Amino acid sequence: MTRPVLPSSGVLTPLGLDEVQLTSGFWADRRALSAQVTVPHCAERMGTLGWIDNFRDGGHRGPDFADSEIHKLLEAASWHGDDALVEEITPLLAQAQQDDGYLNTRWSGRRYQNLEWGHELYCAGHLIQASVARARCHGDDLLVEVGRRAADHVCAHFLEGDQVCGHPEIEMALVELCRLTGEERYLEMARRFVERRGRPALGDTEHGRAYFQDDEPVRAARAFRGHAVRQLYLACGAVDVAVETGDTALLAAVEAQWERTVARRTYLTGGMGSRHRDEAFGEDFELPPDRAYAETCAGIASIMLCWRLLLATGHPRYAELAERTLYNVLATSLSADGRSFFYVNPLQVRTPGIPTGADEVSWWGGSALRAPWFSTSCCPPNIARTLGALPGYLATRDRRGVQLHQFASAEIDTRLVDGPRLRLSVRTRYPESGTVLVRVLGAPQETCRISLRVPVWADGARLAHPEGVVRAAPGLATVDRRWRPGDELRLELPMTPRWTWPDRRIDAVRDCVAVERGPLVYCAESPGDEPPLAEISVDTSLDPVEHAVEGAVELSVELSVEGHRTSPAAESWPYGSSPVPRSVRPHSLRLVPYHQWGNRGPVSMRVWLPRSEALD
Amino acid sequence: MTRPVLPSSGVLTPLGLDEVQLTSGFWADRRALSAQVTVPHCAERMGTLGWIDNFRDGGHRGPDFADSEIHKLLEAASWHGDDALVEEITPLLAQAQQDDGYLNTRWSGRRYQNLEWGHELYCAGHLIQASVARARCHGDDLLVEVGRRAADHVCAHFLEGDQVCGHPEIEMALVELCRLTGEERYLEMARRFVERRGRPALGDTEHGRAYFQDDEPVRAARAFRGHAVRQLYLACGAVDVAVETGDTALLAAVEAQWERTVARRTYLTGGMGSRHRDEAFGEDFELPPDRAYAETCAGIASIMLCWRLLLATGHPRYAELAERTLYNVLATSLSADGRSFFYVNPLQVRTPGIPTGADEVSWWGGSALRAPWFSTSCCPPNIARTLGALPGYLATRDRRGVQLHQFASAEIDTRLVDGPRLRLSVRTRYPESGTVLVRVLGAPQETCRISLRVPVWADGARLAHPEGVVRAAPGLATVDRRWRPGDELRLELPMTPRWTWPDRRIDAVRDCVAVERGPLVYCAESPGDEPPLAEISVDTSLDPVEHAVEGAVELSVELSVEGHRTSPAAESWPYGSSPVPRSVRPHSLRLVPYHQWGNRGPVSMRVWLPRSEALD
Repeated sequence: MTRPVLPSSGVLTPLGLDEVQLTSGFWADRRALSAQVTVPHCAERMGTLGWIDNFRDGGHRGPDFADSEIHKLLEAASWHGDDALVEEITPLLAQAQQDDGYLNTRWSGRRYQNLEWGHELYCAGHLIQASVARARCHGDDLLVEVGRRAADHVCAHFLEGDQVCGHPEIEMALVELCRLTGEERYLEMARRFVERRGRPALGDTEHGRAYFQDDEPVRAARAFRGHAVRQLYLACGAVDVAVETGDTALLAAVEAQWERTVARRTYLTGGMGSRHRDEAFGEDFELPPDRAYAETCAGIASIMLCWRLLLATGHPRYAELAERTLYNVLATSLSADGRSFFYVNPLQVRTPGIPTGADEVSWWGGSALRAPWFSTSCCPPNIARTLGALPGYLATRDRRGVQLHQFASAEIDTRLVDGPRLRLSVRTRYPESGTVLVRVLGAPQETCRISLRVPVWADGARLAHPEGVVRAAPGLATVDRRWRPGDELRLELPMTPRWTWPDRRIDAVRDCVAVERGPLVYCAESPGDEPPLAEISVDTSLDPVEHAVEGAVELSVELSVEGHRTSPAAESWPYGSSPVPRSVRPHSLRLVPYHQWGNRGPVSMRVWLPRSEALD
Repeated sequence: MTRPVLPSSGVLTPLGLDEVQLTSGFWADRRALSAQVTVPHCAERMGTLGWIDNFRDGGHRGPDFADSEIHKLLEAASWHGDDALVEEITPLLAQAQQDDGYLNTRWSGRRYQNLEWGHELYCAGHLIQASVARARCHGDDLLVEVGRRAADHVCAHFLEGDQVCGHPEIEMALVELCRLTGEERYLEMARRFVERRGRPALGDTEHGRAYFQDDEPVRAARAFRGHAVRQLYLACGAVDVAVETGDTALLAAVEAQWERTVARRTYLTGGMGSRHRDEAFGEDFELPPDRAYAETCAGIASIMLCWRLLLATGHPRYAELAERTLYNVLATSLSADGRSFFYVNPLQVRTPGIPTGADEVSWWGGSALRAPWFSTSCCPPNIARTLGALPGYLATRDRRGVQLHQFASAEIDTRLVDGPRLRLSVRTRYPESGTVLVRVLGAPQETCRISLRVPVWADGARLAHPEGVVRAAPGLATVDRRWRPGDELRLELPMTPRWTWPDRRIDAVRDCVAVERGPLVYCAESPGDEPPLAEISVDTSLDPVEHAVEGAVELSVELSVEGHRTSPAAESWPYGSSPVPRSVRPHSLRLVPYHQWGNRGPVSMRVWLPRSEALD
C-alpha cells in the first residue's frame, strides 16, 4: 500500500515502497541525502523561522501558506520512515485543529475570506496528502486522524455551493483519501472542485483568470496555461477524478492538453513555466532560456502528472518525460550537499550569482545560485517528499508481468495480479552507463512478462535475454518467458552524446544546439570570463568527446570564441547596418551535466550553444 | 518660460511653447489628437471610475497612486492650454489639501507608513510638476499655490532624516519648482533625496533593493537597473540636481550609466525594460522581443532624461535616442483614434489580442492590443502631458544661434541670448520624407548660427544653404551667416530603407534582422495565418521596396515561408536529433511602421525577422 498514488483502476498498477528498494546509484544517493540532510535541514529552517511555532501559539510567521510546508515535511518524513519527526510535530497540529476540523494558522478566525489568494484548501490538501502517506507507510495514527478530520471539514463546508481554492491541490488529496478510506464523499468533493473551475468560480485578478485555471472548464482547455504549479496540480486532480469516476472524456482532455503542452510549452530539461511575472506557462514556443522559470515545484508536479497518466494509459511517453524531468529539474534543484536549492531552473545564466548565507532567507528563487531557504519555500520540502516516495515511481505491474519505467539499482519483490511472487534484482550505473542488468531471483511457474522502457533517444538499443539478443525499439521492450532464478536480461542503451536541435518556432534559441547524453541535458559553465559564453559558437560537424570523471561523464566540444562588435560606434548602440565582424579563436569547452551546474561556485552557464557553421 | 525643463545653466537653453509652434505633420497631428481626444478621454475615465471624486469625498477608488493620474492630467491640460479642465479640478485639490500642505487621498490619516510602496512623494511630485507647468503656461493661480504648499510640506517633513520615496519623481519636481520660484530649499530637498538613496534608505522587498534603486548610491551605479520608470525618473532628478548645484561628478555618473544602458539594455525602438515581473531593466543584452516590457512611461521618462542630458551637454546622441523613442515608443502607444494605449511595447506578438471594450479597465498592459484604460493607468495621461509639452522638446539656442534637434513643420520665433530676434519657418513631411526646409523669416544683423541635427543613420545627408551644398555628417550640421529674410536651408536626409543587424550578444534575436527607414522601425503584421510569422525567413540580399500609402511609407521584403518540423515525432517534442527540414515557399511581405502596428485590428507582429541565407 506504500504508494504515492494508488488508483483503483488503470492499465498499470504501481509498485510500492514495500516492493521496490533502491540499493545504490544516482537516485539511492539522492534519496539518502534527502533523508539524512534535506529533511532535517527543512525542519531546522521551519523551526528557526517560527513556522512550526505557528501551530503552538496561533501566530503567523512566514508566508500565508507556511502551514503547507510543514505538511509537506510531514509527508516527506512519512515516506522516509522518519517516525520521530512525524511524532514530534503531529501533536502540534492536532492541538491547533479546531473542533470542526478546520486547521490553518494564518486564517483561523477569518476563514475562507479570500479563496483567490488564501491557499486554505491548498494547505488542507497537503495536510491530507501527508496523512495519506503516513497511513500507507505506518498505519492509522494521530496524523491520519487530523487529515481525515480536515477532509471532513472541507466536505462539510464546500460540498454544496460553487467555491474552489485559487491554488489547486486539494483535489488529488481528496481522491487519495477516498482511495485510502473508501469514503466516496471525498471523491465527490474532488470531482466538484474540478468541475466548478472556469465557470468561473473565482474573482478576477491582475494576472487574469487563466492564472488559476478559472478562465474555462478543465475539460475545455486546449493546453496547460497560467501558473504552472497550480495548473499541473489541477491536472493531477483531474486525472485522479477521471480514473475513479470512469470519466474517459476528462482523461482524454487532460491527455490532449499534456500532449500540446509537451510539444510547445516545455523546456528541453522538462521544465515548465516560461514567465517570472505570474510563474506561468507562456504561449506556444515562448521558451526563453535565460528567463525560464521552470520552477522546481512545477517539475515535481509534472512528474506526478506523468505518473498518473502512465498508470491510467500505460503509454511510455509519460515515463519518458518523467525521466527527463527527474534528471534535469529535480536533480538540478538539489545541491550536492542537500542543503540548498534552485527555486527556478533557467537554461542560461549570464552573470554568476552571489552566494546566499546559510542562515539567509532568499526573497525569490531567481538567483543564479542555489539558496538554503526562500521566503516562499515550497520547493525544498517538495523535493524531500518526492525523493522519499521515489521508489514508488520506478515500476508497475499488470496482469501479465512487471514494467520497469526508470532505471536504478534496486531489489524488486512483488506479487502479480493473480498472486504469484516475482523477485528481481536490477543493477546499473545509469545514467553514466547505458547497461541495465535485470536478474530474476524468483518467479512464478507460469509465463510472465518483464518489460523495460526504451527511451526515445535510445536508437539502436539492444536487449539480451536468455534466448538471444533483440533490437529494442523505443517504447516498451518485453520478454515473455517462464522465468527461472538466475535468468538475466541485459538492456544496452546507446549513450553516445548527441547534438539536439530546437524547433525553429522557438525564437529564443534560434540557430543554437544543445548536447544531450542519455537522459541528461548538458551545459557549458564558465566561472570567469574564459571563455565568454556570450561569444562562443560551436561546430556541430565534430562530435562531442566523453571524459569520465568521478561520478559523472563530462563532455567537451570544439568551438570558436568570436568577438562581438569592434567599431567604436557599435559599442554605443548594439544595432548596426551590417553583420557583425568576427575574430574567431578556437577553443575547447568542457560541458557538465546540467543537474550539476553551479555546484562548484558562481558561474555563468548556458545549455543552448550558438552554432558557427551555416545551416545547409 | 513655457518650457518643460528650464535649467539655470547648461550648454543649451530650451525654446518654449511660446517660441515653437507646431504647424502640421506627424507631431502636430498627434498633439492635436491629444488635446481634442486624449485629454477629455482621460478626464472622462477618471471621472467615471471615481478617481476624481476621491478629492471630493476622501474615498480611495483606483490604485494607491490614482492621485498622480489626476496631477498628470492637470499637467497635460496646462501644456495644452485647457484652462477649463484645470479650473474645474483644481478647487477639489485645494479643498482636499490639509492645513500643513499634505495632499493624498489614499494615505490621509496614515501618512508615510509605507514609503516603499505608498507612492506619496511620487504623487506629490506629479502635483508639483503640474503646478510648475501651470505657472509657466498661465501664471500664478490656485493650482500653483496648491503645488507650492505641497512642496513646503515635503520640505518641512523630509529635509531632516534619511527617508526617500520608493518611486522617484519628487526630485525633478522640486528642482523645477526651485527654478520657477528661486526657493533654494526645494533644490536642497531634491539633492538630499538623490543622495540618500542606496545607503540604503528603504526596506528590502521581494524584488530586491535594486528595484527602487536603493541598492547603491546614485553616483556609484554602473548602469540603469531595477524598475525602469523609477530608475529613469530618478536619473532625471539627479541630472537636474547636478546641473543646479554644479555637481559635474554626478552628471558624469548619470551620463556613463546612460551610455552603458543604451549600448546594452535598450531595444531597437528605444524601449527600456526587459522584464514583466518587476517592470525592470534586465541584465546586459537581455532583450527578449516577445516579453519586452518597454513600458510607455519608461519611454517617456527616457525622452525626459535625454532632453535634460542634451541641455546639459549639447551632445546630439541624446536627441538621437529621444527621436527614436518618440517615433517608436510614444507614437506606438497612442492609437490612431487617441482613445487607447499600449502599456507595454513588445517587439513580437505571436497571438493576436482580444479587443478591450471601451468601458473596460484592462488589468495590465501585457495585451497584444491597445486598451482604453488600465487599473494602473499611468501611461495615458503621461502621453497627454508629453504631447502637450512636445514643442518644448524640438529646439534650443545658445550664445551663437539655434539648434533644431527634431524635425517637424513649425514656426520658431525666439531671441538669442544677447537679445536679437530670430524667426524661422520649418517645413517637412518627415519622417515620410527626408527633406527639411528651414526658411529665415527674420534674423539679427550679426552673424548667427543655425544648426540641424543629422541622425547617425543618415549617412550621405546633404545640406543646401545660400552659399552652396555641403555634405552633412552625423552630429550637428551648422551654418554661420548673416541671415536675411527669405534665406533657406534644405537638409536632405537619405531615407532608403535599411537592414539592421543586432549585436550577437543579444541572444533573443540571434540570426535575425530588422528593417528601418529614417527614424522608424518597421514590423511585419499578420492578421491571420498567412504568412505564419513563426515560419518566415527573409533574404537580406534583396533590398526592401517602398510603397507610398496614405500618410506613411510601407515597405515590402522578399522572404520564404518555411515549414517547421514534419515528422510525427517532431510534433510531440520540439527538440530533435537533426536540423529542421525545410519546405521553402517564396512570399512577399508588407512591412508597416512599428508605431502603426495593431491599429487595424488584431494581428500577430514581429520586428526581428529570421534570416534565410547563411552568415558569411
